[in-house]
Amino acid sequence: MFSEMLKNLREKRPLVHCITNYVTVNDCANILLACGGSPIMADDSSEVEEITSICGGLDINIGTLNKNTITSMFLAGKKANELNHPVVLDPVGAGASTLRTNTAKELIEKVKFTVIRGNISEIKTLALGSGRTKGVDADIADAVTEENIADVMKFAKNFARETKAIIAITGAIDIVCDAEKAYIIRNGHPMMSMITGSGCMLTALITAYITANQEKHLEATAAAVAAMGLCGELAYKKFEENNAGNSTYRNYLIDEIYKLRGEKLDEAAKVEVR
Amino acid sequence: MFSEMLKNLREKRPLVHCITNYVTVNDCANILLACGGSPIMADDSSEVEEITSICGGLDINIGTLNKNTITSMFLAGKKANELNHPVVLDPVGAGASTLRTNTAKELIEKVKFTVIRGNISEIKTLALGSGRTKGVDADIADAVTEENIADVMKFAKNFARETKAIIAITGAIDIVCDAEKAYIIRNGHPMMSMITGSGCMLTALITAYITANQEKHLEATAAAVAAMGLCGELAYKKFEENNAGNSTYRNYLIDEIYKLRGEKLDEAAKVEVR
Amino acid sequence: MFSEMLKNLREKRPLVHCITNYVTVNDCANILLACGGSPIMADDSSEVEEITSICGGLDINIGTLNKNTITSMFLAGKKANELNHPVVLDPVGAGASTLRTNTAKELIEKVKFTVIRGNISEIKTLALGSGRTKGVDADIADAVTEENIADVMKFAKNFARETKAIIAITGAIDIVCDAEKAYIIRNGHPMMSMITGSGCMLTALITAYITANQEKHLEATAAAVAAMGLCGELAYKKFEENNAGNSTYRNYLIDEIYKLRGEKLDEAAKVEVR
Repeated sequence: MFSEMLKNLREKRPLVHCITNYVTVNDCANILLACGGSPIMADDSSEVEEITSICGGLDINIGTLNKNTITSMFLAGKKANELNHPVVLDPVGAGASTLRTNTAKELIEKVKFTVIRGNISEIKTLALGSGRTKGVDADIADAVTEENIADVMKFAKNFARETKAIIAITGAIDIVCDAEKAYIIRNGHPMMSMITGSGCMLTALITAYITANQEKHLEATAAAVAAMGLCGELAYKKFEENNAGNSTYRNYLIDEIYKLRGEKLDEAAKVEVR
Repeated sequence: MFSEMLKNLREKRPLVHCITNYVTVNDCANILLACGGSPIMADDSSEVEEITSICGGLDINIGTLNKNTITSMFLAGKKANELNHPVVLDPVGAGASTLRTNTAKELIEKVKFTVIRGNISEIKTLALGSGRTKGVDADIADAVTEENIADVMKFAKNFARETKAIIAITGAIDIVCDAEKAYIIRNGHPMMSMITGSGCMLTALITAYITANQEKHLEATAAAVAAMGLCGELAYKKFEENNAGNSTYRNYLIDEIYKLRGEKLDEAAKVEVR
Repeated sequence: MFSEMLKNLREKRPLVHCITNYVTVNDCANILLACGGSPIMADDSSEVEEITSICGGLDINIGTLNKNTITSMFLAGKKANELNHPVVLDPVGAGASTLRTNTAKELIEKVKFTVIRGNISEIKTLALGSGRTKGVDADIADAVTEENIADVMKFAKNFARETKAIIAITGAIDIVCDAEKAYIIRNGHPMMSMITGSGCMLTALITAYITANQEKHLEATAAAVAAMGLCGELAYKKFEENNAGNSTYRNYLIDEIYKLRGEKLDEAAKVEVR
């Protein structure tokens, strides 16, 4: 099961190239080390193709995109495609500005992504063509709940078909699917939304998991999502015991990814396949 | 009293747009979440106006300014003024370089700030026209003490009159004033100067407090300053109990902002109004 | 011994200008405060010369270099040379891309560095003219071991002669040398490689130590390297006691630098001079 994915990750120690935002970049680097990967952050257009070539996987996160790094995202993404490296997109804030929405859409057009991970609003913005988070189609609710999960899953599978990417919609309930098969994951804790970067860190984690599990991208993505959720739960226990706050919770979360054993992951992952 | 300000903040969960430095940006994001706000960091000139439009308040921090982000600061500041959003300036290092001094001055000329928060040297540089921290008028001392506090307060009120902004001079003793009324706040702990970002975090916190308390900007600024100082004290207690160092102290400080209850703030704030 | 170096650092509280990467910049700032220094991060070409002029030392780290910051590195480096300020180079990822290798080499040609600190692969790339970490001369092994240490030391002394810089090669065993004399330091813990930034933080630490010990650059560099290694050991003890992970380990490491006393450093430094 998922433990095999984690085992491969720790054995292969994949090098992951991140073009990511400066808000959560340190946490992304530390969680990559925690899970068994190795991070390289590089975003200048004159080196990103070369850096991506020596890595195993590429994480593109548009959290603090700018003119220069956007150019680099396209260059690195295309090079990774050429080399058949897995590439993951985190469309942070798609819907919040035209720049973000358009950049994410153009990236999806010109780069073949292995996985696109976002919250429901970001994914809806990209899938339904709306330019603003506020303005997206109300037919698909803004939170994934037990009531609307069948609809969201159908929507996600359609978007997976269209983009040929694995879609990971994460929130209170997580959905990871390709066009055919969906994993519904019910791990996690609301405290994860009280720190910055839990989404960015998850995207980095997914990149590491799929880079180390080339034949099983869908299952590896689900494994990463379950691992993150589970570690969010474990971190919350320590948080409660120590009467901590959100900054210490962030450390605990990364710590748990570092300490996670495969057996624990298999045992505690709450996964349903539809 | 101040507890009402905190209550409003936690109920309204204002979205705060930060154009800030990459040194302390993660701490600023986490302290915004800790206090009850929600951060968005965006600094590309092609999106800042749009991002500021969907937010409630704007924090401009010149800590690692560069040609591109300076342009964005003016664009976002003017847009926020148009929309009547509160805007806070943190003139980090004004006086340390001509670029910083001139940028901060020009921002004050062209953008109407709700609050300007800095240490005494930065504020003196801006108010007295000196281009270097070293070269500012010696009549107003470089530290706020019980002896010179009346003079500093007068100086701060004058600068508030001139800029039409609330002035927050923070250090061992904090002064928050407009042209008429000053809050003198004696919370805080020297340990706060042993971490990077306590000033930047406070500026982010002020932005959240005033965004959630539109009718009471002066009192909300004072509440944020008192909250930060008080949490610095509470964090120091935990620091001592755990024989910690400055990195852990930083986590404790943000943690205390997360855990802060309004009653505690009212009870422990050391505030004098003059 | 080394305690004198630390004493000078805490008395003089040198201002250190860092042009560094955005991944670990916060940790670098906090470790500079922890050791007794004071950080300023600034990388815009229009202010770096001025900022470096008001500081005592300069740390150039190419970890996330880009077109704009490369220009700033040369400007600041030359200005620091003019003013006879110590300048330290951290050639992060030299060998991983042509941009990094060439930038590091050109910096070494045009700026006189007081210290160059890197891992063995980075230093080999710069010294032996190979453009890729993978492609460097196999005669000098990729890890410093008890078996090859004499060879690596000879290689390092040659590179020190050539560059007129102190060379610090850090890893499981650390070598700090000029053309004549080498310190071999056997402090440290493997856990240090499980966090991002231990190298960047060490470079910042070295800059602070040598800025406060102008007559004794070689010994001060060795002191910084021993201090970092020792604190890595002390942090590991706390890590084990608390069943922590790598994120908390990072905090403990900086905390130990904050708490380090000179006597402890003298007592626990494992140093051999050859």
